[in-house]
Amino acid sequence: MNLRIVRYITGWVIIFEGAFLLFPLITGLCYREYEICKVFALVILICVVCGMLLKGIRRRDLGELYIREGFACVSLSWIALGIFGALPFFISGEIPDYIDAVFEVISGLTTTGASILSDVECLSRASMFWRCFTHWIGGMGVFVFIMAILPMAGARNINLMKAESPGPSVSKFVPKMKDTAKLLYAIYIVITVVCIVSYLLSGMTVYEALTLSFGTVGTGGFGLYNDSMASFTPLQINLMTFFMIISGINYSVYFCIAVFNFKEIFSFEEVRYYLLIILASIVLIAKDILPMYGKINVAFRHSAFQVASIITTSGFSTADFDKWPELSKGIIVLLMIVGACAGSTGGGLKVSRVLILMKGVGREIQSIIHPQRVRKLYLDREPLSDETLRSTNAYAAIYAVILVASALLIAPDGLGLTSNLTAVLATLNNIGPGLKAVGPTQNFGIYSSFSKCVLIFDMLAGRLELFPILILLLPSCWRKY
Amino acid sequence: MNLRIVRYITGWVIIFEGAFLLFPLITGLCYREYEICKVFALVILICVVCGMLLKGIRRRDLGELYIREGFACVSLSWIALGIFGALPFFISGEIPDYIDAVFEVISGLTTTGASILSDVECLSRASMFWRCFTHWIGGMGVFVFIMAILPMAGARNINLMKAESPGPSVSKFVPKMKDTAKLLYAIYIVITVVCIVSYLLSGMTVYEALTLSFGTVGTGGFGLYNDSMASFTPLQINLMTFFMIISGINYSVYFCIAVFNFKEIFSFEEVRYYLLIILASIVLIAKDILPMYGKINVAFRHSAFQVASIITTSGFSTADFDKWPELSKGIIVLLMIVGACAGSTGGGLKVSRVLILMKGVGREIQSIIHPQRVRKLYLDREPLSDETLRSTNAYAAIYAVILVASALLIAPDGLGLTSNLTAVLATLNNIGPGLKAVGPTQNFGIYSSFSKCVLIFDMLAGRLELFPILILLLPSCWRKY
Repeated sequence: MNLRIVRYITGWVIIFEGAFLLFPLITGLCYREYEICKVFALVILICVVCGMLLKGIRRRDLGELYIREGFACVSLSWIALGIFGALPFFISGEIPDYIDAVFEVISGLTTTGASILSDVECLSRASMFWRCFTHWIGGMGVFVFIMAILPMAGARNINLMKAESPGPSVSKFVPKMKDTAKLLYAIYIVITVVCIVSYLLSGMTVYEALTLSFGTVGTGGFGLYNDSMASFTPLQINLMTFFMIISGINYSVYFCIAVFNFKEIFSFEEVRYYLLIILASIVLIAKDILPMYGKINVAFRHSAFQVASIITTSGFSTADFDKWPELSKGIIVLLMIVGACAGSTGGGLKVSRVLILMKGVGREIQSIIHPQRVRKLYLDREPLSDETLRSTNAYAAIYAVILVASALLIAPDGLGLTSNLTAVLATLNNIGPGLKAVGPTQNFGIYSSFSKCVLIFDMLAGRLELFPILILLLPSCWRKY
Repeated sequence: MNLRIVRYITGWVIIFEGAFLLFPLITGLCYREYEICKVFALVILICVVCGMLLKGIRRRDLGELYIREGFACVSLSWIALGIFGALPFFISGEIPDYIDAVFEVISGLTTTGASILSDVECLSRASMFWRCFTHWIGGMGVFVFIMAILPMAGARNINLMKAESPGPSVSKFVPKMKDTAKLLYAIYIVITVVCIVSYLLSGMTVYEALTLSFGTVGTGGFGLYNDSMASFTPLQINLMTFFMIISGINYSVYFCIAVFNFKEIFSFEEVRYYLLIILASIVLIAKDILPMYGKINVAFRHSAFQVASIITTSGFSTADFDKWPELSKGIIVLLMIVGACAGSTGGGLKVSRVLILMKGVGREIQSIIHPQRVRKLYLDREPLSDETLRSTNAYAAIYAVILVASALLIAPDGLGLTSNLTAVLATLNNIGPGLKAVGPTQNFGIYSSFSKCVLIFDMLAGRLELFPILILLLPSCWRKY
């Protein structure tokens, strides 16, 4: 492990976090919350000083950034983001327990949206802005941002992207990684701006439109009010549904639109299946919950919003889906696992991974019937390499192990299998609410500090797609060359 | 698909079932239950006639038995065994609903041990004997038996074994498949006889010793009494624990012992891990439930019995583990998934599959740290082929799909996630009891007929290891050559 480059990059990330903290500071100034502004100013100072110390002031030869350094950089930086990002909540006393504060910030950054707060409305405007802004920062990823603006030498920067981008493979739109990062951020900003404007037109206040857009486009799920989204108008709800679904689509699609390559759009199998799953789930759930709501349009609105919110792993809620019939709850748990498209801001296993797994299964069954025939697998009209298939299988296996192990580790809190399992699913897939004790009207404050740490690990593992955070645990990763 | 050979073999299986039914008939005669004896005699007649009609009376050229015929034979035969085996319960009126009767018999044959009966003590002795005897028939497998005694031409009989034997690969002890089958049955009978004798010596009645031995050695879990095993003495409980663990070990070990090849025994990685998992689970659970039982020996006895019962997928119970603390319940759910060794009578995912999956994961993580190094995987000191790894991964993926799909299909019954999930786990892994509504003191009678059919499918899929039963659903499997 080349620790020098890891320290250098992590240091920069902390400095950038200081810069991001300027936004809530400005919000605080707008709303004249001078007390909390002092806290934010102090934390910005801490970030800059610590970041500078960590990265070192003199420019030295940093050495190579191999894949393991890339992975270590990304996971350590995300942990650092949580540790420093929690300071405003902790110092201001708005979240008195430090682990709770870290939980809240990691939940924001990983776009989980699981909260430990039972009363979110008592937060200051500045803190609330920071809470929602973390969704936006984490949605596209910190490194995409850093790579887009920081001059970093070396062609190996793709190792950073590999660690942070969601999905089984990293698509490079353009030959240079730096330009890809810029393009991604440009698309991200355009969608966010369109979303903010639409929300404003639908009648939300500037503050609501801004903070909710961060959550929608970043597929986070922190609500502004204690009842999450229940107090919004049907139009606003439907707009959010639309923008959540849009945000869960592979950004390659938007790239194709941006370069007027419309033919290519229809080659994305993953997106087709993603939309198909959404449609089928909406119809099934709407039919199932119709007796509860009476009117067909109300049932469809709730169903569509919840399906979009869960499959994109946002986690907003308009209704207490924990009270819905068993079939609907079952479909929701299933959507939790599947997740959004690779290359989007959403979490979960990703539709493309599920597709790859199913194609592997199909081939295996076919090979029983026709043992002689060797079938090649395709995804998006391109051949699927054995390596991708193997690593996807390994991914699914690790996913299952982490799921079961986490559920066991938090079991002693005694909240029951359904709560524990969905709590782990909700954090590992970066969704937010689960069922029962962690249902949409509940929060994660009931868990012990130890369990919260387990769930923080799950959120990070889910967002960084398991491997980066796992290799930190291997001693052989830290060995000197 | 060569239907002629499928009909021939399925016909023979039904005739054999008629032969097996002679045993409960004799039991009924011993206990002077003449009414039920008439029913059994009638069913034997039905089996013989239907079997003869199906297989055809004149001997014709049967054609080849390829792997797909092998798989179809096995799954269709098992379904036929359930359909005909349910007749005694149905005709006698002891189980008035036919689907319930099929559920009970399939549960017996697949060594699941899940019951729809709330009062098992009201069954006649003959019916109870048949119920327990199905465990013993299904434990080793019907085809192993048929191959051991029936003169069948062709070297392709291994395709039948492949479909029925548990585990990722079929071990042939001796060059000829027929001799392997004979050896397996010999070992099976020896263990059963030793078990019966031990039970007799521990003070059980002949009837108890016989019926419980079928369940222990076949790793089924039908109890004789409504409280399952709670009324037995500590010595008897410990004996059962021992024999259950013994029955979950890969039979290759016993083959090595039989031919005095003691050196080879220690090469079975799977068995080492199996025993290690058992030991660790017993200690963890005993520590967890100690406050409930006060005495350390009582806690250990319950813990050991339950761990052995669940990991071997037997499903007997001495205590209502649904009332145990969350951690213990979590470990039990985990053991449900892992299951026993391949090549034993136990079900579940199998320890060797879990090992193979974990080795694949380990290699994938290592390849991130050392991208250049290519590592070969080994199991039992032998190289692990890519094909085995791939099919194991596919197996795990299908397993997960069936698990989730079944839980969704039975969700409308409204029994809650924990009950539904553990009901599917308990049937798919051929265990028996789950948690909550299907806990050790409950039964499966609460489910609707449709849900019971789903669970019957799960039991068959679990026992036959998914592929044989799945390919029946593919139209291309039925196409003529």
